[in-house]
Formats: sequence, C-alpha cells, structure tokens
Amino acid sequence: MSVSILVNGIAELVTNDPEVDGTPLGIRTDAAVVVEDGTIAWVGRAGDAPAADEVRDVGGRAVLPGFVDSHTHAVFAGDRAAEFAARLAGACYDGGGIGSTVDATRAASDDELRRGLAVRIEEMRAQGTTTVEVKSGYGLTVADEQRLLRVARTVTDETTFLGAHVVPAGSARADYLALVTGEMLEACAPYARWVDVFCEPGSAHAFDADEARAVLSAGRERGLGLRVHGNQLGPGPGVQLAVEFGAASVDHCTYLDDADVDALASGDTVATLLPGVEFSTRSPYPDARRLLDTGVTVALATDCNPGTSYTSSMPFVIAMAVREMHMTPAQAVHAATAGGAQALRRTDVGHLRLGARADLVVLDAPSHLHLAYRPGVPIAHTLELAARVS
Amino acid sequence: MSVSILVNGIAELVTNDPEVDGTPLGIRTDAAVVVEDGTIAWVGRAGDAPAADEVRDVGGRAVLPGFVDSHTHAVFAGDRAAEFAARLAGACYDGGGIGSTVDATRAASDDELRRGLAVRIEEMRAQGTTTVEVKSGYGLTVADEQRLLRVARTVTDETTFLGAHVVPAGSARADYLALVTGEMLEACAPYARWVDVFCEPGSAHAFDADEARAVLSAGRERGLGLRVHGNQLGPGPGVQLAVEFGAASVDHCTYLDDADVDALASGDTVATLLPGVEFSTRSPYPDARRLLDTGVTVALATDCNPGTSYTSSMPFVIAMAVREMHMTPAQAVHAATAGGAQALRRTDVGHLRLGARADLVVLDAPSHLHLAYRPGVPIAHTLELAARVS
Repeated sequence: MSVSILVNGIAELVTNDPEVDGTPLGIRTDAAVVVEDGTIAWVGRAGDAPAADEVRDVGGRAVLPGFVDSHTHAVFAGDRAAEFAARLAGACYDGGGIGSTVDATRAASDDELRRGLAVRIEEMRAQGTTTVEVKSGYGLTVADEQRLLRVARTVTDETTFLGAHVVPAGSARADYLALVTGEMLEACAPYARWVDVFCEPGSAHAFDADEARAVLSAGRERGLGLRVHGNQLGPGPGVQLAVEFGAASVDHCTYLDDADVDALASGDTVATLLPGVEFSTRSPYPDARRLLDTGVTVALATDCNPGTSYTSSMPFVIAMAVREMHMTPAQAVHAATAGGAQALRRTDVGHLRLGARADLVVLDAPSHLHLAYRPGVPIAHTLELAARVS
Repeated sequence: MSVSILVNGIAELVTNDPEVDGTPLGIRTDAAVVVEDGTIAWVGRAGDAPAADEVRDVGGRAVLPGFVDSHTHAVFAGDRAAEFAARLAGACYDGGGIGSTVDATRAASDDELRRGLAVRIEEMRAQGTTTVEVKSGYGLTVADEQRLLRVARTVTDETTFLGAHVVPAGSARADYLALVTGEMLEACAPYARWVDVFCEPGSAHAFDADEARAVLSAGRERGLGLRVHGNQLGPGPGVQLAVEFGAASVDHCTYLDDADVDALASGDTVATLLPGVEFSTRSPYPDARRLLDTGVTVALATDCNPGTSYTSSMPFVIAMAVREMHMTPAQAVHAATAGGAQALRRTDVGHLRLGARADLVVLDAPSHLHLAYRPGVPIAHTLELAARVS
C-alpha cells in the first residue's frame, strides 16, 4: 500500500520550475511537498497542504532537488594524496598519474572496488547527491573495464564506458583504438548507458579528433548515449565534436574559443564544468559567465577521482563556482541540479515538479544562498524518504 | 575512578612533537594513544600499547590533535547571505555591514544568542574543532558587550572583549574610545580572557594606532591578554603595535611590508591567517610563504562571522591555505592545531604529547594530506571521549 509523506516547515523550496516565480530556481517560500510512491505528488503553500499518512517537519530549513553529479570516476583503488601534495607544492613529481590508479585498480578485488565505491557513494549521499554518474576508465583491458562497469552498475544506472580514457602504457594507439571500439565496447555496452572519450590532442596519452570520432561513432552504433571530455588542458576539437554528435554533455570546457561557445549555444549539448579539478591542480577556472551569458546550459559536477579532483562534495563545487567562476548562487544551484539532470538527459530528477523523483536535499540553513555563503560547512543532507541513489 | 581508554588502529598519528620524527608534525605510523582523566597518558607504537579499561579502534584512520580555531565572532544574530551573494556578484550593495549584525544581535534574546552559538559550536566540533575562541563586538554597548561575553563564556574560556570592533553609528569617536577603555572594559573584563582591537586606520569605523594603543594598554592594565585585528584592508600599524605590546596574535596580516615581517620574526606574536575572509570577499590572500620562510609562527582560523567569513570549517580553511596560500598540507595542519594553540598561549592543546588534553580528531582517511586532497568533504570528526569544547 502506498504511504504519503508530507514534508513541511520548508522556509524556501527550490523547485527548478520557472512557472513558480519566473526564475529558473522557481522558489516557493513557506512551502510543503507531498511524496507518494517515491515521487512528488503535491507541491504548494504550507497552509494548503493536504493530509498525509506521515508528516516530516524540516523546521524552517531550505529544501532543494537532490544534486545530480553527472561526472565522476568514483570506482577505483589506490591513493594519490602524495602526488596531490607534491603538485600543489610546485614539485615536478610524477607519481605515475592515471597509470598508478590503473595498476591499483587492476590489482584490487571486486569486493575492494565495491567497498571503496560504496563509501564514496555514501559520502555523496550524505552531502545531498541523489543521482550520480560513474565512469570506467581505470581498467583499460576488456575484462577490467567490464568489471568496473559491473561494479558501478550496482550503485547507479548512469554508467559510462570510458575505455578511451588514455592509451594504456605498452599499447600501440591503433591497436588500442580498435579494441575500445570493438571487443571492449561489446563487452562493456551491456553495463553502460553512455560512452565517453578523453579528447585532448595535446596530450600524448589521450585521443585526437579522428580517434574520438571513431569512439563516439562506435558507441552510438552500439546504442550508447554520448559524452565527451573536451578542452580541459588546451584548445581542441572536443566541444565541436560533442555538439556535432549531439552528445548529452561535453565536460571541462576550460579552453574555449568563440566558435566553441557559438556551437554550444546553437546545440543542446550541456557544458559541464568541474571546478574541483582547477582547485586541485591549481589551474585557471573555466569562464562560466561567458557560457551563461550566451545561453549555454551549464552543469556542475565533482569529477570525483583520485588524481585531479578527489572531492565528492557538490556543495563545495557550488561554492567554488560562485567564488571562482562568478556564477550567482542561483546559477550554481541550478547547474548542480537541473543542469546535471540535462547533462544526463534525465527529466525525472533535478527538479521538484509534480511527478519528479522524490529526491530532496535539506539544508541546515534557510536559503540556497548558504551553500556558497557557508563554504566547507556540511549543511546539505539528503532527506531519507526513499533510499536509492541511481 | 579513572577509566583508561586505548585508541588504536591509528594509521597515522600527528603529535606535533618534533622529537618523534624531526618534523613539526611529529608523525607516528601504526600508533596508539591511551587517554586517562581526559589527558594523553601514553603515546607509542600500537604493538607496545599497555592494557586499558576500554578500547576504541579507529580502523586504519589518521588521528590529529583537535583543531584550535583561535579567531571567531561566533555569537551573533541575523543573516547576511543576501549581502554575501550581492558582493560576489559584483553589485555595490550596502546591506548595512556590521551595523546590521549589531542591530539583530542587540534585538535578540539571551536564549536566541545561546541557541545560535550552540549550533555553531556543535557544527565546529562535528568538523574537528575542539578549542574555539569567541569574541564580542556586535553589542557595542556596555550591557550588550557584557551579554555577548557571558553567552560566549558558557561554551569556552577563550573569550575576547572586542568592544573596539567598530565605532558604533551615532557615537563620537572620543566618547566611544573612553567607554571601551573605561566602563565597558570594567563590565566585560570578568567574562573575558583577552582584549582585541580592529586597528585599520584606512577604515572610517575602525581604530587608528593611537586609539588601538589606548585599547591595548587599558586591557593589559585590567589583566587581559592582547590580540589585534591588523593589516586586513591595507598596510597599517596593527602588526607593529601587536609585536610592540607582545600580543599573543595579530590576525589577518594580508598587507605586510618588510618591517612588519621582520617584527613578527623577531617577536613571539603569532600571525593568524583567515583565508575564509579572502574567499568570501573575493580578496587577495595573505602571503603565508613569506611569513613561514622568515620563521614566523602562523596560525589558521575561520574568523567565523556572518559578514565576511561564515564558515565554521577548519578543514576548509586548511584546504584553502594549501590551494591559495601555497602552504604545504603539513604546514596548514600545524597552523590549524599547534599554531592556533600558540595564538591562544595554550600549552595543553594543539599537540598530543603526554599530558595534553585528550582532544583527538579522526579523519575518514589514512593521512592528514586528505584534508587538502579532499576539499569540502566532511572527513574530520572529533573523537568523542571527553565532551567539552573550551
């Protein structure tokens, strides 16, 4: 039998329904929500709320849609804290980079990988993330890439095959590309919703435009949705390629020229910005304002990974977007919820309109502004009504 | 009867005892600690640990001395989130600044002030802060300043009389200075350990060198320890004055000339850096490296206040110190523990040598490096053996 839950005492409700107040956040004050069968069954003024089987009073707090973290590499083994510390101290330190994570991940048992992932997912959920994408990319063999996706699939449906993360040490580029677009894709596709490619022609280990094109074409052929890592380390073809292929998202977008911005504005590919990377590599932040001012849809995500952004905190990402990328708190919150949902082509999450999945974040604060106003303070908590992150 | 508690399973123990390993952090690996009567009764290798009445296994985590947050304005009422958002959006917005907090604080009941403070102290403790300083400065009348200190004294012995925060609207400077150094000081001193002054000659509402000298002299005469807010908004006499008076700490230190750095290096006044302020006001960060390289003792603190740094998170401050001020993680951790203790002239906290107060922070991580490596993630937790923050 279905149980209805009335959530009231909401000082500020972010719905992401522009019809509420004419702004993207669609803010209601003094609001209530009714949840039934895990979805939003009613939204309105607290005084108008219908009766329900259970009542949860959040005590004058703000409630938002759960954060949608649309870009993570959360399944891995190993620790690169020393590499991080050496890099930020300015040392020219080669800790082995992605290769060291690949080695540790291959050596880990399924159980170890599952446990590590579970801890990170729990950490994310405790901070308000209710939808998370997880990529492979630290296996780089047919068996290991498939294994990472099987593990990822135990916690989310938003799994991404990223065999095309780097060309592994010891492999010839052409051979590896054939593997990624052939046997590895076949083995991985049953466990993946998306395919992704690290398109960065300036990097010896990443993929150029033609190679990325081959990866995206093969993935599309196999029925996967498309994502691209592009324009992170320098100007490149990633953004143009993503838009040309109608990819759901192109991620990083740190180095864009006018044609890249125009392409994004004319297509429906989301630009996903990952300021945790710039924080943890002490690099220049992407120009979010230029994208927003041109009408591009922006998402924010953590890029949670052990090398270049080992944060799992969407509130931290929001605070950095406001401080360093000059997004308003409203733009940052929208990008971390509705933006992430659009980057995953999801209509059931990222908002709190009728029928949405009942993913609610409660802040220990009266307003969404506090996510940037109170940097580092763990004020965001997933409201535990329904239990699964997916 | 005294109960001994053995804390083991410590992958990395930061003792801040340089005799352990020749470095300031004094790191032991595979360590254990015995706590008795709320103090550290034994420290050593896990295999050598003596028997104890209780055992707490932290499961391969890192353990540090509790953070010492030596600079907060945590007792106040009101909310300045909108002012924060407007400032970071570049708007020229006058939300009333400190004056709006003064109005809200004066209007709040003792109970409201106590509840707000209790929430913030609990938030700090949950993030690993075990010693916290709290200033007055939002009352600015004899009765209200005393009231703030009485409220602060309920949570900590480290209370600071900051009647000399700003000259309140409607007061003549000379009259207010006479009050702060006379009647107000008399009323507040019984509830304060320290006196502090906002010395910033460039600001119309703060205090110049002569005025600051009068405040410090009167406070010293009345038996209070000395602290100074100095060189935050521009070059000024605050640092020189603090060293001349032998103040325990001079806080902010954003704009220093060579003579300021030399003065700090020659004295025993701690330079307390507050990067949460630069984060939340989008200002240039202080040059921590210049201070450290000259041998100055540096402390890190939150400056938790509703206007310019509403963070209560020492882990966030550590991460910002590493990213933005080029401190190593070890230097940042030392500054947030031993540095803060020295800024409060405390020898019982900020380290884990024999006899120290048993203030332990456990990280959900194997190393202190993770405080910067995992920005925004709430990995630090006070180990609840003894319960009081003071």
